[in-house]
Amino acid sequence: MREEVLTGVVVTSMETYDIRFPTSLELDGSDAMNPDPDYSAAYVVLRTNGEHEGHGFAFTIGRGNDVQAIAIRALEPYVIGRAADDLAAIYQDMINDSQLRWLGPEKGVMHMAISAVVNALWDLAAKRAGKPLWLLLSEMTPDELVDLVDFRYLTDAVTRDEALAILRRAEPGRSERIARLLEQGYPAYTTSPGWLGYSDEKLALLCREAIDDGFTQIKLKVGADLDDDVRRMRIARAVCGPEFKIAIDANQRWDVGSAIEWVTALAPYDPWWVEEPTSPDDVLGHAAIARAVAPIKVVTGEHVQNRVMFKQLLQAEAVSYVQLDAARVAGVNENIAILLLAAKFGVPVCPHAGGVGLCELVQHLSMFDYVAVSGSMEDRVIEYVDHLHEHFVTPVVIRNGSYQAPVAPGFGATMHPESITAYSYPDGPIWRSA
Amino acid sequence: MREEVLTGVVVTSMETYDIRFPTSLELDGSDAMNPDPDYSAAYVVLRTNGEHEGHGFAFTIGRGNDVQAIAIRALEPYVIGRAADDLAAIYQDMINDSQLRWLGPEKGVMHMAISAVVNALWDLAAKRAGKPLWLLLSEMTPDELVDLVDFRYLTDAVTRDEALAILRRAEPGRSERIARLLEQGYPAYTTSPGWLGYSDEKLALLCREAIDDGFTQIKLKVGADLDDDVRRMRIARAVCGPEFKIAIDANQRWDVGSAIEWVTALAPYDPWWVEEPTSPDDVLGHAAIARAVAPIKVVTGEHVQNRVMFKQLLQAEAVSYVQLDAARVAGVNENIAILLLAAKFGVPVCPHAGGVGLCELVQHLSMFDYVAVSGSMEDRVIEYVDHLHEHFVTPVVIRNGSYQAPVAPGFGATMHPESITAYSYPDGPIWRSA
Repeated sequence: MREEVLTGVVVTSMETYDIRFPTSLELDGSDAMNPDPDYSAAYVVLRTNGEHEGHGFAFTIGRGNDVQAIAIRALEPYVIGRAADDLAAIYQDMINDSQLRWLGPEKGVMHMAISAVVNALWDLAAKRAGKPLWLLLSEMTPDELVDLVDFRYLTDAVTRDEALAILRRAEPGRSERIARLLEQGYPAYTTSPGWLGYSDEKLALLCREAIDDGFTQIKLKVGADLDDDVRRMRIARAVCGPEFKIAIDANQRWDVGSAIEWVTALAPYDPWWVEEPTSPDDVLGHAAIARAVAPIKVVTGEHVQNRVMFKQLLQAEAVSYVQLDAARVAGVNENIAILLLAAKFGVPVCPHAGGVGLCELVQHLSMFDYVAVSGSMEDRVIEYVDHLHEHFVTPVVIRNGSYQAPVAPGFGATMHPESITAYSYPDGPIWRSA
Repeated sequence: MREEVLTGVVVTSMETYDIRFPTSLELDGSDAMNPDPDYSAAYVVLRTNGEHEGHGFAFTIGRGNDVQAIAIRALEPYVIGRAADDLAAIYQDMINDSQLRWLGPEKGVMHMAISAVVNALWDLAAKRAGKPLWLLLSEMTPDELVDLVDFRYLTDAVTRDEALAILRRAEPGRSERIARLLEQGYPAYTTSPGWLGYSDEKLALLCREAIDDGFTQIKLKVGADLDDDVRRMRIARAVCGPEFKIAIDANQRWDVGSAIEWVTALAPYDPWWVEEPTSPDDVLGHAAIARAVAPIKVVTGEHVQNRVMFKQLLQAEAVSYVQLDAARVAGVNENIAILLLAAKFGVPVCPHAGGVGLCELVQHLSMFDYVAVSGSMEDRVIEYVDHLHEHFVTPVVIRNGSYQAPVAPGFGATMHPESITAYSYPDGPIWRSA
């Protein structure tokens, strides 16, 4: 990071907000495990003695968003009065505080709280540097990047030296890849057609729209009823044609045996991947399912709690793509570790997004991966869902089925103040009138 | 459960308390990852329209205990107004609430909150039945017991029918085993000599005391400094003699490679087991360590987040003993699932205890296991630490190195009101004067 930009600025205050969107009313986001989510953000603003703020959030789906916001608030002592350029040290202090660590370790509410704060610090760093986060990261040296990573529990899969070698291998061509990103963007796929709550007619219509919009892959939610899934998969395949990639997503609905049976029943419609077939904690289960349903690919990640679990999913050859999430693990720093693990094992990263604000964040990680880690966009797509972008100051831009590279400074998490006010729970006007 | 006892009582209110003990001042509980724990309880009291209350808690080690207490408070809507004998349904409602589930799923702060509430409901049930929990459970039929378990994600390892068969196999001899428990108690081992903060003299003294007190196994904390560990292990072995079991516990300090090196260096002193050599999330790592250090046994459990992780530790032959914890997973119900998994794989359960109140709780689970699940006490011990028992109304009783079977009604979690007041954080008199 450029020294002259990052010196002297101190975090002076933290504000947290419980923001909830009543998405359950429209069945947007309905799947086999989550019939009625209210997409929510436990939102944090770090103010400084400088002109910039850092914004971040943990994504939840409604109840418990208050607990999540209070967990973020518990991290206040780790950031107030700290220099903004102590980012790596603040991250280490938060994940290695022995008393807080007992609440995980490195998982669940407390870990997602750390994610929100770490991401807010990166938003602040990128705004101060006057760059989008993906570019700020892409211009760091390999040594600076490995210093951001905690290699504890990873060294049987990737060491600091191996990580350095991966990053150095990708140094040539960085500027060409930056130029290509700015020109062409990064490929997306869309989940918008496939929510369980939609009618067959809406499904067919949205499949056609996805093709017209330039997407080359869609995703259908499955797992509630096999007959329904066969019918919906048949409709989607008929509309999209035989070459189009149609992924399916069970959102953890099945046990290992039922996952194998269900996916086998849908195999005639050629699903591209099956996502979250079972518990995100079940590394061995995913590996067993992957062996049984090949060549259909098994993928997971949005609920994978930390780098230790991603390490094992890769070691066990349980997943064909890594679906990291921007706000589930401990923010940018831990996601760099996960990008390095994926690169080490040669497995492409196709991030989870959707919810509220996750698209805005995760595009930066995939673009950084392309420029400075894997060096490739091949066989990689970022999830896209067309919900709730209007609440963000710099919403994602999708063109020809691709995320356009963001150019605004920051990490993209900043919401409009009016949205924060309107959707604050339970006292904002939207909820008072509900 | 006996219908006549359990009808008509409704939960009418929930109270939560943030209780912390300043144990860091004495270095009690100091280990390689937790140098200065303040043993704490996020404590819950369920009051009813009847004469009994249910008490439970999540155990933490200080900072974040407030977040944990608030997470318990978030579960209030799931219990208030519910019939106390709807215990199994309340448990299912809490773990399967799709919005709350997003905060885990089934791990960390939110899962430990469910643990506290489930255990409080069992404390209430046992008090109403006029029996200690272990006996209440031990007198339930196999069908009643399997109805308490959520088999989701377990069926590739143990099905409901297999669980029923395990429980039916243990039905003959239940009353003889109950009589034997009441007469002899259940073997314990003690961790009291082995905290890292203790001097060599205190270590040697406490080893001698452990032998005099009738224990046949102790445990030393290791992992901060290899030279220190070699010296402390040599002292302990010299005091205890060649036959005595000395376990070592690294509290997650190592990576896979360093665990193997460190344990190999201590092997000449014949450690009985190595506990928590690395991240509790690393199933494959534990399996690799177990293969490398055999015949020294690898064990873990106190931070293992749920039944899905225990399932994999058993499937991967990663552990020689299952160290379940009474308050980390979702309470009695999920621990019954874990006992059934262990029985299915033929692996003995040697529970984690210590902290504050964990001994009081977990003895009930081992005793129930002996009477009604595994049917055996062979090669099994319950951890014992002699801290903080004075704060409980029915503290554990250790005699001749064994837990004496509790006879007081309930689950043992009830603290003295004076202790709750004195140690409430931050406004109790102990903390105001600190």
